[in-house]
Amino acid sequence: MHCFASSDEKLFIDLGERSYEILVQGDSLRMLCDHPALPASGQALVVTNLTVGPLYSAQLIDALKHRYPVVHTLELPDGEEHKNWQTLNLIFDALLKHGCDRKTVLFALGGGVIGDMTGFAAACYMRGVPFVQVPTTLLAQVDSSVGGKTGINHPLGKNMIGAFYQPRLVVCDLATLDTLPERELSAGLAEVIKYGPIADMEFMAWQEASMDDLRARDRTALAHAVRRSCEIKAWVVGQDERESGLRAILNFGHTFGHAIEAGMGYGVWLHGEAVGAGMVMAAELSLRMGLVDEKFVLRLRNLIQRAGLPVKAPVLDPSDNAGRYLELMRVDKKAESGEIRFVLIDGPGKAVLRSAPDALVREVIDACW
Amino acid sequence: MHCFASSDEKLFIDLGERSYEILVQGDSLRMLCDHPALPASGQALVVTNLTVGPLYSAQLIDALKHRYPVVHTLELPDGEEHKNWQTLNLIFDALLKHGCDRKTVLFALGGGVIGDMTGFAAACYMRGVPFVQVPTTLLAQVDSSVGGKTGINHPLGKNMIGAFYQPRLVVCDLATLDTLPERELSAGLAEVIKYGPIADMEFMAWQEASMDDLRARDRTALAHAVRRSCEIKAWVVGQDERESGLRAILNFGHTFGHAIEAGMGYGVWLHGEAVGAGMVMAAELSLRMGLVDEKFVLRLRNLIQRAGLPVKAPVLDPSDNAGRYLELMRVDKKAESGEIRFVLIDGPGKAVLRSAPDALVREVIDACW
Repeated sequence: MHCFASSDEKLFIDLGERSYEILVQGDSLRMLCDHPALPASGQALVVTNLTVGPLYSAQLIDALKHRYPVVHTLELPDGEEHKNWQTLNLIFDALLKHGCDRKTVLFALGGGVIGDMTGFAAACYMRGVPFVQVPTTLLAQVDSSVGGKTGINHPLGKNMIGAFYQPRLVVCDLATLDTLPERELSAGLAEVIKYGPIADMEFMAWQEASMDDLRARDRTALAHAVRRSCEIKAWVVGQDERESGLRAILNFGHTFGHAIEAGMGYGVWLHGEAVGAGMVMAAELSLRMGLVDEKFVLRLRNLIQRAGLPVKAPVLDPSDNAGRYLELMRVDKKAESGEIRFVLIDGPGKAVLRSAPDALVREVIDACW
Repeated sequence: MHCFASSDEKLFIDLGERSYEILVQGDSLRMLCDHPALPASGQALVVTNLTVGPLYSAQLIDALKHRYPVVHTLELPDGEEHKNWQTLNLIFDALLKHGCDRKTVLFALGGGVIGDMTGFAAACYMRGVPFVQVPTTLLAQVDSSVGGKTGINHPLGKNMIGAFYQPRLVVCDLATLDTLPERELSAGLAEVIKYGPIADMEFMAWQEASMDDLRARDRTALAHAVRRSCEIKAWVVGQDERESGLRAILNFGHTFGHAIEAGMGYGVWLHGEAVGAGMVMAAELSLRMGLVDEKFVLRLRNLIQRAGLPVKAPVLDPSDNAGRYLELMRVDKKAESGEIRFVLIDGPGKAVLRSAPDALVREVIDACW
């Protein structure tokens, strides 16, 4: 996969037969109906949730009616706790009830949960129908636009059931970010910040200069943040589509972050908040491993703080906090035979996958709260 | 996809990175453990059912223990009525309960239902783990060994949810056919017979000479029948992996057959029995369309009868039998906007996809019972 900005408003993801475009525009929902990547079909189904649907589905449906004779809508309950088989089955029920055939196009209008479930439904319905992502959160725009990961949770594990399945088109309408709660905007920024230290220090410097604009939802700033994040992700994923090696660097801050999410109980901290504090911890560990200097750690920590994200790790167990973190990180699905692989910064702009001595990890945890 | 017999006992399915071998042998279960296509892993899970498990799982597990440190087994209830999400979820439960990772290899030991469900579970678990097909019915050996179709039923439709997903290896152990009920052997032969008229009259002539051996379960005869059927299917599927055109010829006899299955109630006639009578009807229609002569129809009819299959269609509605057949065929998922596309024989050994005048179809139905 290669990826390049073919214009200010478009990004082309080159995956051979499965290539697609990401539109990043002020109000692309309205202009969607003319896009050549929309497959011809007699029917379309818009899948959204009870929060996003009332805000944006009318606008999307109006646009799609110029292109599809029949447009159905399905509103699912909102929240990660509904990302399961029962809710997924509501999509299949709707498709079959409406007599949808193999050409029916699915539109995922919402955040990551809607995108993951709708993409997975599209991958499985009649063994594959086309789908279009319309992510309406910053996190979904920078994270799920690229990579083709779809799926649902199982009671025994998150994202355990799913498929790699590419959309025909991704439409990031920046206007939909206007209604995003402050806290979710910050959480999305965590995944934007991530790309600097692991791959592009120029992007980090740009973020330092633009953080106020980003938090004020300036569309020009947001457009650049989304586009550049997607570009870097596409470059990384392109070298490792099935997640065997390099792709792991996208998990910078996520090893500590997952421990925070699991230890606090999922949903107490948003994913992006946990990644925010997790990136500070991973940077501290990089410092103690002799890979970066203190100045870099402070710079990153400052940027994370300015994004409105936590930079201190929560205490998960007052009697042995570091022990609890280590325990949680050892059962993470990315650990191999109990050995924790950290994404560390090997000099600014470059990530590396490494294990680390427990003693150093304990130092970091003790230092970060 | 290309496919050629690289030896008497092997068939190579060329799908680029997703290529695999089909072993067709007298007792290949025992020799399985040395096969280079078996992926290395710490764990394997054998998925089977309550009928096949007690007969063959011990033998398979013994072989696999030479290769995998830990081998788990899961016995599912037997029957098409269990090919649903609830049963599929038992596979995910087992995988997660045992802490199976992305390298865990799934083995499908059983007929088509076990193969379809295990393959789909492998396609979805952690977005894809390797799996090996060990089909133990003639139908599964000739039909599901090639094509990569996996999936489950939905209350509103058969095989509506699934994936195209290729196995790493298919092991057809002909010894497992010894315990197959007579009626199921015949039903499997329907799918073998199919390949003659649509693609290979030499194969049809060979079957005419070998039908007694096949029904007596002679291993040499069965081996050739399985191998040649898989070869032809691979050749057809290779030109149309995602089922847009040519692949439809594999449905010879299936349009009438599906009407029989649906009209009688699923399970009253076995799928292969319905296809047996359905092929006679499709041949009669080809005759009435002027594509083949009466001699060919009689020849095919005779072969189907010798396989122990019905050659007369059941009466689905005494008051308007032809009307009921037409009605059922029009709602078939392969019909387009209500127009029935029949697979007809356009001269022996060549299939063609055609619509036909209702009057001729009625004549055929009236003539076939």
